[in-house]
Amino acid sequence: MTDLLGKSVLSTIIQTPTCGALDFVERALLSIDDAGKISALLRPADEGYAEALDQVRQNGILLELPAGQYLIPGFVDLHIHAPQWPQLGKALDVPLEDWLQEYTFPLEARYGDVVFAERIYADLVKTLLANGTTTAVYFGTIHQEANRRLADICHALGQRAVIGKVAMDHPEQCPSYYRDASAQDSISGTSDFIDYVGSLPGNEDGRVLPAVTPRFVPSCSGRALSGLGRLAEDKDCHVQTHCSESDWEHGHVLARFGKTDTQVLSDFGLLSRKTVLAHSNHISDADMDLIRQAGSGVAHCPLSNFFFSDAVFPLRRALEKSVRVGLGTDISGGPSASLLDNCRAAIVAARALDHGVDAGLQPSSRGIAGSRIDFREAFYLATAGGADVLDIPTGRFETGCHFDAILVDPDVETAPIFIDAGLDSPDDIAQKLVMQATRGNFSRVWVNGVVR
Amino acid sequence: MTDLLGKSVLSTIIQTPTCGALDFVERALLSIDDAGKISALLRPADEGYAEALDQVRQNGILLELPAGQYLIPGFVDLHIHAPQWPQLGKALDVPLEDWLQEYTFPLEARYGDVVFAERIYADLVKTLLANGTTTAVYFGTIHQEANRRLADICHALGQRAVIGKVAMDHPEQCPSYYRDASAQDSISGTSDFIDYVGSLPGNEDGRVLPAVTPRFVPSCSGRALSGLGRLAEDKDCHVQTHCSESDWEHGHVLARFGKTDTQVLSDFGLLSRKTVLAHSNHISDADMDLIRQAGSGVAHCPLSNFFFSDAVFPLRRALEKSVRVGLGTDISGGPSASLLDNCRAAIVAARALDHGVDAGLQPSSRGIAGSRIDFREAFYLATAGGADVLDIPTGRFETGCHFDAILVDPDVETAPIFIDAGLDSPDDIAQKLVMQATRGNFSRVWVNGVVR
Repeated sequence: MTDLLGKSVLSTIIQTPTCGALDFVERALLSIDDAGKISALLRPADEGYAEALDQVRQNGILLELPAGQYLIPGFVDLHIHAPQWPQLGKALDVPLEDWLQEYTFPLEARYGDVVFAERIYADLVKTLLANGTTTAVYFGTIHQEANRRLADICHALGQRAVIGKVAMDHPEQCPSYYRDASAQDSISGTSDFIDYVGSLPGNEDGRVLPAVTPRFVPSCSGRALSGLGRLAEDKDCHVQTHCSESDWEHGHVLARFGKTDTQVLSDFGLLSRKTVLAHSNHISDADMDLIRQAGSGVAHCPLSNFFFSDAVFPLRRALEKSVRVGLGTDISGGPSASLLDNCRAAIVAARALDHGVDAGLQPSSRGIAGSRIDFREAFYLATAGGADVLDIPTGRFETGCHFDAILVDPDVETAPIFIDAGLDSPDDIAQKLVMQATRGNFSRVWVNGVVR
Repeated sequence: MTDLLGKSVLSTIIQTPTCGALDFVERALLSIDDAGKISALLRPADEGYAEALDQVRQNGILLELPAGQYLIPGFVDLHIHAPQWPQLGKALDVPLEDWLQEYTFPLEARYGDVVFAERIYADLVKTLLANGTTTAVYFGTIHQEANRRLADICHALGQRAVIGKVAMDHPEQCPSYYRDASAQDSISGTSDFIDYVGSLPGNEDGRVLPAVTPRFVPSCSGRALSGLGRLAEDKDCHVQTHCSESDWEHGHVLARFGKTDTQVLSDFGLLSRKTVLAHSNHISDADMDLIRQAGSGVAHCPLSNFFFSDAVFPLRRALEKSVRVGLGTDISGGPSASLLDNCRAAIVAARALDHGVDAGLQPSSRGIAGSRIDFREAFYLATAGGADVLDIPTGRFETGCHFDAILVDPDVETAPIFIDAGLDSPDDIAQKLVMQATRGNFSRVWVNGVVR
């Protein structure tokens, strides 16, 4: 018995339902309804716990997970370029311009071949699920058929997903062999894809959602951005794009519009409660205020940023300003398909920003003191934080949330994590898992109560 | 047939015998002698290749490794605190003082219990071997028996190792429950341990070597440092210590001696061709020159440095000055027992130093341009670079070197690396493996021609 629809599970749970608060509960009793949502969470100290446990045992609907294994919420990856899956981990040593023109654009252009697309996308979605990514936010390509196959594959494999047809029509910024034929093409193609996902048979619960996806401001004409903004409002759907990722991008938009990315996106109606802004490393305080007011969220991609962003995202400042933030792998700008690797990288990047990097400077002027985050905050970003950016009830174990979860086994031959009950407190165990777990430790992954 | 003494192996090899130079050879033919050293390396284009291949085939002494798997040199981890193994990945969220006084010193003090020591050390050495660490440089504790067991275990499990009894006698810097009773105790304890390793039965080839190991300058009295320097010269053995790791340590030594760590170590006779300096983040140009002149090497520990060092090691500057550098996990200052994780972290740390971290500064004043390294340089540090710091002939596939190697399989269910012959060049494959491989991909590890 591994699927949990209409059943209950008894396990140690580790979660961070709010930012920085670690919740470690042994022998927690979670009940899952027929729709895959958590209908009850009882802790041993709760009233009615013993009776409820007896009841589900007697009814034969209890899955008792092994002691020494830990149930954690599934990961929410807010930023993935699905077509870049074949180049994960390569070409990170070349300049951005070569990375785009010699590797990325030619690769993305191949998705006009739907057979190629199906092979790659199936491998990607399977891999991410095994890595514990139960919710994924994808950029597709400009190709209608390939994007539809990506939606089909997520749906068939059961992954929670937000997917966008990439809109890119600017002739000066996009290669002739890989761009939308016109602004109208960007807009109608996006609209068609939204309709396709909306009418996907079996997707009535909206587990797969569409997103309006201007690649980034530089690659879109004003007409396209304007039409996409109207479309997002008309269809009331998610928006995803890159925002102030690098010095180059930030400066390019300033030069073209006399405004920052954030302001331009806002002016075009692309900054809403449903917007996910990838990166945002170079946003100003005013940009942050605008993002918070709009209720948009940031996909912080710490590993990718080391390679392509020229600076570290000011995460602590964003959290202090109540900007919603989650994490992204940015496949393949980042070299890892593991959101947990990025959770660790977020800790490390925040440390670098906190203390600075150049030992030749005085400690007081080396970095931005107070920027660090700990494993509790990083784990929140990887789970509940990302879910909150999307306003999807997942990323935590709470009544009403989807049961999207990972069973973590530290005692695996090929990926052992040293845990000693005599030496390690609950906090220690949680930190060890966050800092060390890899896919080899994920013995089971559920989306919506079903093993995937 | 997996042990290779007196045999030959046919495989694709990937190595970086010199810094930054990638050597990718399909169907390389390596011959290993009875002592576990490489007696010949033939490439398909080499004269006599076909004949040699026929010969070993006919003689039935050829191991043909599967196509699609890759042979790489074993990793050299230059800095490991063996007793800290149980706390890997925990307590990284607390201040340094708490980390030392509440976690690290109490844990290290437990190794007075030799049963505890044996259990932990056996688990550690086994894990590191499985992680591909074929050569390891260990700090032990102050305890004679526990240190001996660590040497025994490395010897029994076949790991190449340099091990030191930790010397720490300064009453103001070491807790009363965990320090050498006197300077003389530091010196004689070190001497005894050196003799023990030298007379270890079966260790005549020196696969396990002893090291003089002052914990760091602050924790040692002048008398101890002076005696240890004389001992290192008398016994002609390795030295390992921490050097200018953090602002605090660097400043403490300056205040106590009016000189930098490097100068103090040099004055005490502890800076030699056989010295491994962990960290060295805050060394000056003059320190670097002194290190190069002495022929000492640096154990760069990039992951640990994010947590405890207040800055990034100026790696590019050190390489330009011809300082020898390798990598260390710094278990448990760093949260990973994988040297390959640290190889990746070295790339990321160098990127952070290169571009800087604070987006609020102008790009030109944000970091130190030119500091980045690529995967070829990082992989060199993890293998041949580390070996060269120790002057041990390993870390590369070359006649006369020990056959210390890892077989990497990208096509593993629990740790897949997407490689496509049609899309990936040799350089791409190498970079993908360096950026993505985990222990799950290491199907076999050899030390000295024998599977471990």
